[in-house]
Amino acid sequence: MRFVRYTAGGTTSLGIIEGEKIAEISGDLFGQWQRTGRHHTLSAVTLEVPLIPPTFYAAGLNYVKHVKEAAEKRGEEPKFPPQADIGYRAVNALSAHDTDVVIPADAPDQVQYEGELVVIIGKTARNVSEADALNYVFGYTIGNDVSERTWQRGDRTFFRAKNTDTWKPMGPWIETDLDLDAAMTVVRVNGKETIRFPTNEMLYSIQTFIARTSQYCTLVPGDVLWMGTDGTSPNLQHNDVVEIDITGLGTLRNRFVRAGM
Amino acid sequence: MRFVRYTAGGTTSLGIIEGEKIAEISGDLFGQWQRTGRHHTLSAVTLEVPLIPPTFYAAGLNYVKHVKEAAEKRGEEPKFPPQADIGYRAVNALSAHDTDVVIPADAPDQVQYEGELVVIIGKTARNVSEADALNYVFGYTIGNDVSERTWQRGDRTFFRAKNTDTWKPMGPWIETDLDLDAAMTVVRVNGKETIRFPTNEMLYSIQTFIARTSQYCTLVPGDVLWMGTDGTSPNLQHNDVVEIDITGLGTLRNRFVRAGM
Repeated sequence: MRFVRYTAGGTTSLGIIEGEKIAEISGDLFGQWQRTGRHHTLSAVTLEVPLIPPTFYAAGLNYVKHVKEAAEKRGEEPKFPPQADIGYRAVNALSAHDTDVVIPADAPDQVQYEGELVVIIGKTARNVSEADALNYVFGYTIGNDVSERTWQRGDRTFFRAKNTDTWKPMGPWIETDLDLDAAMTVVRVNGKETIRFPTNEMLYSIQTFIARTSQYCTLVPGDVLWMGTDGTSPNLQHNDVVEIDITGLGTLRNRFVRAGM
Repeated sequence: MRFVRYTAGGTTSLGIIEGEKIAEISGDLFGQWQRTGRHHTLSAVTLEVPLIPPTFYAAGLNYVKHVKEAAEKRGEEPKFPPQADIGYRAVNALSAHDTDVVIPADAPDQVQYEGELVVIIGKTARNVSEADALNYVFGYTIGNDVSERTWQRGDRTFFRAKNTDTWKPMGPWIETDLDLDAAMTVVRVNGKETIRFPTNEMLYSIQTFIARTSQYCTLVPGDVLWMGTDGTSPNLQHNDVVEIDITGLGTLRNRFVRAGM
């Protein structure tokens, strides 16, 4: 099932995608909800970020090629994380499918995409086992963990390197049914494919991250876990359009624009 | 004015503290609110975390002695941050005044307090100047940035070193009027003073953090900025009670308990 958050006629609502239509729902996405009987045409509404998470978790360095190529660029030996330690991003940076990613005028030129699977938690998870972990997942969407590498290397935190406003596109919707092992992540820049990797070939699995995180930190409905990316990105230019496909989830598309240009 | 979030008779409400009484209010703390006419006795209610922030910001390494003493303990030269780069904490870890901080059974023994001033944002702030920054502050409270130093050194992120459930006590209430330059932060363990420092003698001021952060990341009403701490803490033991006073803000008190003891 596909859940979408959208704006039509000035009102933001939740709905279920049924072909070319949206059936509006009301209530709690993670609890009781019901159809309102109202419908919209999918192509006629504005898609919104599917949800605003209470906590925005992100797994860095979770694919082999990404760790190796990033280390190579820095002239260092690759260091694989010894454990599934989760990091954080911030909700100010979230932006919807088909909106612009705005690069501040003072940002250096190493603005890059990271195409990621996003896991959405559906039930309160505390001390969950790996075997049981996927039962706490509500669904999946796509994220672009936009990063500026000069700031990422030089700043003490990732506040602007990864959390500048609009730098966390997420969407276009939430899909509850996904064949993880069959999924491929494909990224295109201006229509040309730049990378392709099996979505689930992670260093640490979704199950491992949920189990380890929940041993210390209670996960709640609506929390998101961005699962990291593979490979590297070219430096994006003003007007570049980045599309991220994940099999079964659709396409997240955003144009990159530099402020003042 | 002092705003408090509290539970009485199974209902959680907002109120204004007036002497020994709470005058209940309804509405938006940062917008329109009104008195309901109901009153409670302050000592008879359960205090809650004053608010759940959309984004939970934290300034690390923001006092001279803290940077020096932490470096000394690691046998390193102190490194002062070259810029006011803000970090993040997570809302799962928030806990109220007078509740227990729970140390997981597998946590190493370097669990320490950090007594901090907490700044609460009241208005949407984007590209704010230092001169104007304090106009975006709604009020202040107290935070204890509980940290386990072994995990902090060894893990790739601070997910459990600083964000384990209950490890971010915040409260007891929000005070809108504070003489920053007159304020002292005092910490006591089991009633004995362990540290005392001028609250506002920061490496980077509140104004600098708000201005720099808001250049990239829009701050919104309810966001909190924890401003860092000075000095170092002893390793806390099962049943230790930590109290943090900040002049004009009151006292944040929490007992530390080790799970399974």
